Order: sequence, then structure tokens, then C-alpha cells
Amino acid sequence: MLYLIGLGLGDAKDITVKGLEIVRQCSRVYLEAYTSILTVGKEALEEYYGRELVLADRDMVEQEAAEILRGADAEDVAFLVVGDPFGATTHSDLVLRAVNDGIPYRVIHNASIMNAVGCCGLQLYNFGETVSIVFWTDTWRPESFYDKIKKNRDIGMHTLCLLDIKVKEQSMQNLMRGRKIYEPPRYMTVAQAAGQLLEIVQNRRERGDELVLTEETVCVGLARVGAEDQVIQAGALRELASCDLGGPLHSMIVTGHLHPLEVDMLRLFSSQTNGLQSLKMTDSSTYVS
Amino acid sequence: MLYLIGLGLGDAKDITVKGLEIVRQCSRVYLEAYTSILTVGKEALEEYYGRELVLADRDMVEQEAAEILRGADAEDVAFLVVGDPFGATTHSDLVLRAVNDGIPYRVIHNASIMNAVGCCGLQLYNFGETVSIVFWTDTWRPESFYDKIKKNRDIGMHTLCLLDIKVKEQSMQNLMRGRKIYEPPRYMTVAQAAGQLLEIVQNRRERGDELVLTEETVCVGLARVGAEDQVIQAGALRELASCDLGGPLHSMIVTGHLHPLEVDMLRLFSSQTNGLQSLKMTDSSTYVS
Repeated sequence: MLYLIGLGLGDAKDITVKGLEIVRQCSRVYLEAYTSILTVGKEALEEYYGRELVLADRDMVEQEAAEILRGADAEDVAFLVVGDPFGATTHSDLVLRAVNDGIPYRVIHNASIMNAVGCCGLQLYNFGETVSIVFWTDTWRPESFYDKIKKNRDIGMHTLCLLDIKVKEQSMQNLMRGRKIYEPPRYMTVAQAAGQLLEIVQNRRERGDELVLTEETVCVGLARVGAEDQVIQAGALRELASCDLGGPLHSMIVTGHLHPLEVDMLRLFSSQTNGLQSLKMTDSSTYVS
Repeated sequence: MLYLIGLGLGDAKDITVKGLEIVRQCSRVYLEAYTSILTVGKEALEEYYGRELVLADRDMVEQEAAEILRGADAEDVAFLVVGDPFGATTHSDLVLRAVNDGIPYRVIHNASIMNAVGCCGLQLYNFGETVSIVFWTDTWRPESFYDKIKKNRDIGMHTLCLLDIKVKEQSMQNLMRGRKIYEPPRYMTVAQAAGQLLEIVQNRRERGDELVLTEETVCVGLARVGAEDQVIQAGALRELASCDLGGPLHSMIVTGHLHPLEVDMLRLFSSQTNGLQSLKMTDSSTYVS
């Protein structure tokens, strides 16, 4: 049996009891390590689970699926995923491969950023399409995520923005020379994401577009959701561009139409952390002072 | 401290290790029992958690919040929620009340139907607004959910439909006589939801509306997601209207634009269960034979 097991979002103890029992009885245990991170590392997980973990990076999952699935028709193999196995990144390829090879599979679900963002008080019901915001480079500055946010806001929906993660990236020089030397991992912060979004707002204003999103649009920055030191900050987009929410992972929400109960909840995360008491949130989801 | 703890979707062992440790050390433990159900009852949870649970129905959570929060500034109180505390139903009221009373709170997340539906292979990224489908009566047949599904499909998004639950309902007779006698709980099936949706499609056709949704639109029925006996069935809307997916809880998805990988995953849940091998899914999200 292939088990796809969600680890949740915080530390080793965010696995479910069922998931832990299965991990402890599997012959081999893989840890997917390229789309998200926990607040603890592989060693802490190994110690708590009492099992050796094989790190599975993107190359391995894509190119060595046969190795992961080896013998799983006769023995139990676990594939651990931070969050939920079908959360922000799905592992459909591995499932399809298993089914094709006659290997039964089972999913042990857990919280993922896709549902845990509800903790900020915005109702999951009212989220539209989720978008990804990638790191801009000097030559590549895609704006497509803005148009998706616009489409959601047009119909009153909130937008969850998942922020870029760069792990096992090679510098151009190392890539050209074929040297497997990797740059330190980079995780986009809420401030960086808000900054890129502000630039697009400015571009669109200069183009004369009708703006559905401005510097004053209410946004929510979230860091380390589900962990002990989770931070949530609600504020105008321009404010989030200069916030410091600490270490990774960060996510951001651009709000759509706000329900009064949602506004009450967001106030918990604005007045407490950054003195926005004097600001009033209006129904049109912008801050007015 | 007030702990809001998600129980996940299956049975007693779907709680996280962290959640279980907290439940076992709290002075009082409440179980929210009106928006969802596990495959096991209160007694099984009590035995596994080793704690007595107080059932909290809607009246209690709304009217006796003070009792739930009593003493939580000095001792630990747990409020257990099937799925995630901020999943389909949020518990913002209780959180706001706690904060107002100076009681710290913490959320222990878990899987909820809002993210676990990803197990059918449709990408959570591509879901629009979630809708609720309520039981129609002879005199009350709201069609508003159709318009939300339409809005999602217009922009290519999938729609998760949460299906009605009626617990602690009184008959009109018992209600008028003030007798606290409750009808047996009712849980909407995928077949019932699909049937109501088909009626609306027919109504709109007769009105001459342009249809964005027909009898042939690809839908997915899900039953007992996360439990051992979970069932997923993909098929045309008209087919789901006569399917039998067994006991509660059921949910349904109306697909939007389908990505090829999503089609491959959905095939796993059509050919296996109901002989749809001969049908071909097209990009426009309708079945053609």
C-alpha cells in the first residue's frame, strides 16, 4: 500500500494519530521537501516518528517514482507531505503511477494552508481562485496573478496568494558548468509580495486601467500558520509592503467583499499588532482613516 | 486558554497528536455537534480521548457561550469541531467572545472538507466560491446556488457544494406545541442534490436562459471523505442523480474547466465504480459518448 500522509503545518506533533501509527509501520518513509516546510527539520521528524526519512525532492518524485513505489504492492510505503497531500500541490502523478502499477493507495488528510487560512476570520466559502506570486527577476516580471485577483474581486471573492519558494536553485554560472551547487533557499515574504503587487497597481494606474485594487485595499499577511509563533496582520496593502512577519512560510490574502463578522475578526489582527485602531474598515474593503 | 481543536474527517484517530495531548489535559471538553459528523459517535470519542465530552448544539454555542468560556482565563477548555475549526463553519463568534473576555485562544488545525476534496484529483487552486445546497420543501425551492455555480463556471472554476444537514429539527406540530421532540437527523445525498440541480437546469431551459450547466456536465460525488469507506464517483450530472454512495456525509463538485491531469484523476473514479469507460471527458467539462 502507498500511503500519502499529510503532516499538517506546524511541527512533528501536527501529524494525526492515524498518520503516526502508519508511518511507524511502513517499510520506507519518504518526505516531500520542495513545496513547503515545517518549523522543524528532518532530524526532529525522524526522532519523533522513530523512523528514518528519505528526502524526496522534485527531481526524485518526478524521475524516480518507480523507486518510491518499489515493492509497495506487497509492503507499506509512506510518502509524507507538509500540509495535505492534495493541498496547494497535488501528488496526482504519483497516485496515477501507483494505480497504473496495480498498487493500492490511501490518503491520510491533514490541515493545509488552503483551509487553515480560515483562522484569520475570513470565510473559506468566500475565496475565489488561489494564485501564486513568484519572485520577479530583472527580466521576468509576470503580472498574471493581478488579473486573477481582479477577477475574484470583481465578484466579491477573497484571494489566497501563495508565495514563491526557491529551493535547490542553481546560479546561472553553476548551472552552465553543471555544478550541483545550490543557492540558499529563499522564501517570499508578505512585504515582498505586497511590494510587487503595489508596482502592478502603479503600472495599471499609469496605463489608465480602472483599478479594482489600490494601495488601500484590505489585505492579510500570514506567517507560519498553525505553528506556535504564527503571526497574522491585517492592513492596507501599502502597510503590508513594509511589515516584518518573521521567518517563513508566508501567505497573503487580498480581500474581496467583507462580511461584518469578517471585519470584526480582522480587527483582532490589526489593532493588536500595529496600531490600526484609528482606521475603519468599510464594506468596500478599503481602509479609510 | 480556549483551544479550538479540529478532529478531521474520519474517526477518533484523525485528531492530531498535538490535539489529543491538549484534549487530555483540559478541564472541560465540548464537542460541536451540529455542522458535521464523524463516522463514530460521541461514546467512541470519549473512550479514545479518555475524557467526558459535553455535546454543544447550535443553541448552546450561540446562547451559552459564557458557560463554555467559564474559567477559561485560568484553566484550559477545549472546543472540538469535526473537520477544522475554521472550515465550512467558522467559530468566529466564540473567538470574538473569548478575546472580549480577555481569554487567550489557540487553534489546532485539521483537515476539513474544504481541502480534503482535493483527493478526487481536482486542484484546490481552481475552486471558486463554495455553495450550500439546502433541502427543498413544497413551498421553498431556492435556486441561488445555481447562480453561484454559474458564476464559477463562467470563469472556469470548480464549485464545491456542501449538502444540507438537518439535526434537531422539530415538526411544525411539535414546534407549535412547544414540545422538544426532534425529528431523526437528515443528511442530503449526492443523488438528491443532483436531482434538485437538474430541476433548476430544466427550469432555466424552459425560461430560455443560456445554459452554462447541463445534464451532461461533469460532476463528482463524494461520500465520507477521509474515512476508510470513502466513495468518490465522477460522472455526468444526470448520472449522479441516480447514484447511491451510502451513508452520510456527502458532498458534490460541479467541475469548471478541466486540466488534463484532472481528467486523468477523475477517470479513476468513473471507470472503477460505474462503467463509464466508454465515455470520454472533453475539455469543456461535459461527457460525450
